[in-house]
Amino acid sequence: MSRPVITFLTDFGPAAPAVCRGVMFGIAPDANIIDVSHQVTRYAIGEGAGTLVFALPHMPIGVHVAVVDPGVGTERLGLALKVERGDILIGPDNGLLIPAAERLGGIIEARSIENRELMLPVISSSFHGRDIFSPVAAHLSMGTPFESVGPEVPIERLVRLPIPRPTILRGELETEIVHILVFGNVTLAGVPADLQAAIGPVSPGDALTLEFQPVDGRQGTTEVTTWERTFGRVPVGASLLMADSEGHLSFADNQGNAAARLELSLGQRVSIRRA
Amino acid sequence: MSRPVITFLTDFGPAAPAVCRGVMFGIAPDANIIDVSHQVTRYAIGEGAGTLVFALPHMPIGVHVAVVDPGVGTERLGLALKVERGDILIGPDNGLLIPAAERLGGIIEARSIENRELMLPVISSSFHGRDIFSPVAAHLSMGTPFESVGPEVPIERLVRLPIPRPTILRGELETEIVHILVFGNVTLAGVPADLQAAIGPVSPGDALTLEFQPVDGRQGTTEVTTWERTFGRVPVGASLLMADSEGHLSFADNQGNAAARLELSLGQRVSIRRA
Amino acid sequence: MSRPVITFLTDFGPAAPAVCRGVMFGIAPDANIIDVSHQVTRYAIGEGAGTLVFALPHMPIGVHVAVVDPGVGTERLGLALKVERGDILIGPDNGLLIPAAERLGGIIEARSIENRELMLPVISSSFHGRDIFSPVAAHLSMGTPFESVGPEVPIERLVRLPIPRPTILRGELETEIVHILVFGNVTLAGVPADLQAAIGPVSPGDALTLEFQPVDGRQGTTEVTTWERTFGRVPVGASLLMADSEGHLSFADNQGNAAARLELSLGQRVSIRRA
Repeated sequence: MSRPVITFLTDFGPAAPAVCRGVMFGIAPDANIIDVSHQVTRYAIGEGAGTLVFALPHMPIGVHVAVVDPGVGTERLGLALKVERGDILIGPDNGLLIPAAERLGGIIEARSIENRELMLPVISSSFHGRDIFSPVAAHLSMGTPFESVGPEVPIERLVRLPIPRPTILRGELETEIVHILVFGNVTLAGVPADLQAAIGPVSPGDALTLEFQPVDGRQGTTEVTTWERTFGRVPVGASLLMADSEGHLSFADNQGNAAARLELSLGQRVSIRRA
Repeated sequence: MSRPVITFLTDFGPAAPAVCRGVMFGIAPDANIIDVSHQVTRYAIGEGAGTLVFALPHMPIGVHVAVVDPGVGTERLGLALKVERGDILIGPDNGLLIPAAERLGGIIEARSIENRELMLPVISSSFHGRDIFSPVAAHLSMGTPFESVGPEVPIERLVRLPIPRPTILRGELETEIVHILVFGNVTLAGVPADLQAAIGPVSPGDALTLEFQPVDGRQGTTEVTTWERTFGRVPVGASLLMADSEGHLSFADNQGNAAARLELSLGQRVSIRRA
Repeated sequence: MSRPVITFLTDFGPAAPAVCRGVMFGIAPDANIIDVSHQVTRYAIGEGAGTLVFALPHMPIGVHVAVVDPGVGTERLGLALKVERGDILIGPDNGLLIPAAERLGGIIEARSIENRELMLPVISSSFHGRDIFSPVAAHLSMGTPFESVGPEVPIERLVRLPIPRPTILRGELETEIVHILVFGNVTLAGVPADLQAAIGPVSPGDALTLEFQPVDGRQGTTEVTTWERTFGRVPVGASLLMADSEGHLSFADNQGNAAARLELSLGQRVSIRRA
């Protein structure tokens, strides 16, 4: 497979990514540029990182560009990360790339992007996606050596996002909302083994109480739901707790939008116990 | 033309289709994957079917994947349909694929997707778009024989959607809203010949009364409009009834959004008579 | 680079562009079709023209199709414009294409699209994007001679949009909002040299008063802001005036949405003076 693969995620909305795509095609005319998403909430680094974790493992090996970059124009580094699976990840040094890099086997080399010859001739202060990250990614996809992007950066010096982990109590799992999917399904920190460590073995049909904590002045909500393997096991409109297709704890309504119904929000804390 | 063509429609919104595209490119690196739409209303099978009818006749011959799938994780079949024009349609057995298959010359063979070797190694219960439909489509686009997907299903056993037809009365056509386009133009069941059978020959400039029936507790609306050939024949902001680019009866505002102005909804019944 | 390049901008929203893409791939199976945007506000010719100016200079040389076309179905011409850089621009004769054509070096030949052999067999009155512009663009991308599209049109007869220019007064620059980007950053007519001609040399940190004039019955707003080179120089949430990546005067909030905060709108007049 000789066609270069570049994947592309930003918080730019509809028009700006096209400009970047134009820049990439100018350098790598035969690239297969796969849009991951350009509808990440503006500057929401954690949401962008979650989308990359969800998407990149299913992408062909290639160069992955991601730009959610509140620090553009300041001194934050621009990074190129080589990972175990053979991919290269390109983007700002703000934690955005790290969880996906770990999912792809871990970082084996990190470099700071500094080689002006791989960038556009004029660098703006506000659009590094177009002027730096896109042309560097396109050059790398065409075989430019990884080492040429700039000097090595110690992996332990990279900026990292805090990773939410559930807390296992006696009879209760304390966790939080780490992702809200477009359908209103809600991903929680942790996996079924965490839940079982807290409340013992769970079987399809078991009744559970989820207590969503108050957030931003809004009251909390208590929801009685069911542990099931799949949506089709509960009536239309009813909720369930399940393992999603990635193995994470997931709370959802069958054919409904649970996040909208209960006004849930990213980062909101949740306790799970038997009903 | 040797490059494989795959078209792709879902109700997934922005990020999930990218994962499916990644899976397809992993199997068919040189495929030309054409997004039809990923903004079908969640679980709106009829709307998805209408969009396929609108789009697929203009697509190159290829493999067409469509996923609007409220029954995912239940016992509904996954289908591969071979049609007269030479295309293959892939998706759930819920009626979504049938109208477009008929528009492409009709189904000549239907099979249930069961061959695990054409799927991803792990099948989730909630994301068959990624785990089953995408890899099967990519394999078929690369030349895997149609017969290998699974056992044949009798065509008359496929799930079908009810098809709305207008009722021709003396001096009145009873019809309904079958599609609302993004601009607020409204497609009605039936063609100009149906209208003429009900009210006699119609010419540009003829005044017509459309009576939109009450729906969901909202009152009905009566609109006096004009039969015209094209938008430019009525003032900006005025409405018209015309034949759309597919030959269907279509109600629209010139440079406005008729559906929003009159709060129209899919399935709403409409009577047309001379004003 | 032998792969044909077609870029594509419309005000169609999500589903209709796919049909056009299908038509183009049917004629030019190996084309690289780059979507510029399909979320231009319906019939907003000026907004579409601005997006083309922003995007096309960064696209590879190719055929650029743009459809924002309130006059579809009337007598307005369909145009093919050959520009100095080597590109061809395709779209309606309503001013949409001109600013980008000038940015690409200027128009060297304009033709009216009339050759039926390059169009779909059936031409609807409401969907020239699909029936005329897309197939003509695809044929041109495959090497059909430019002259074959139809008769030449004198360049001075093309429809043009009014171009906003700032007015340089003593101590004050009168300008207007010519573009609102998706992040709420606001582009003003004029460049830093215009501002300096009005108020003398400006340096980072200089305080400026922007007076946004009343529009559509809404009151005007006065904003005291700072001239800076880059977002990172002002606190999060604070506003600044800067030169954007294209060299235009740009007013923005650091990590905020200035257009939403002050309820600014396209075409609104603004005065800038020292605070």
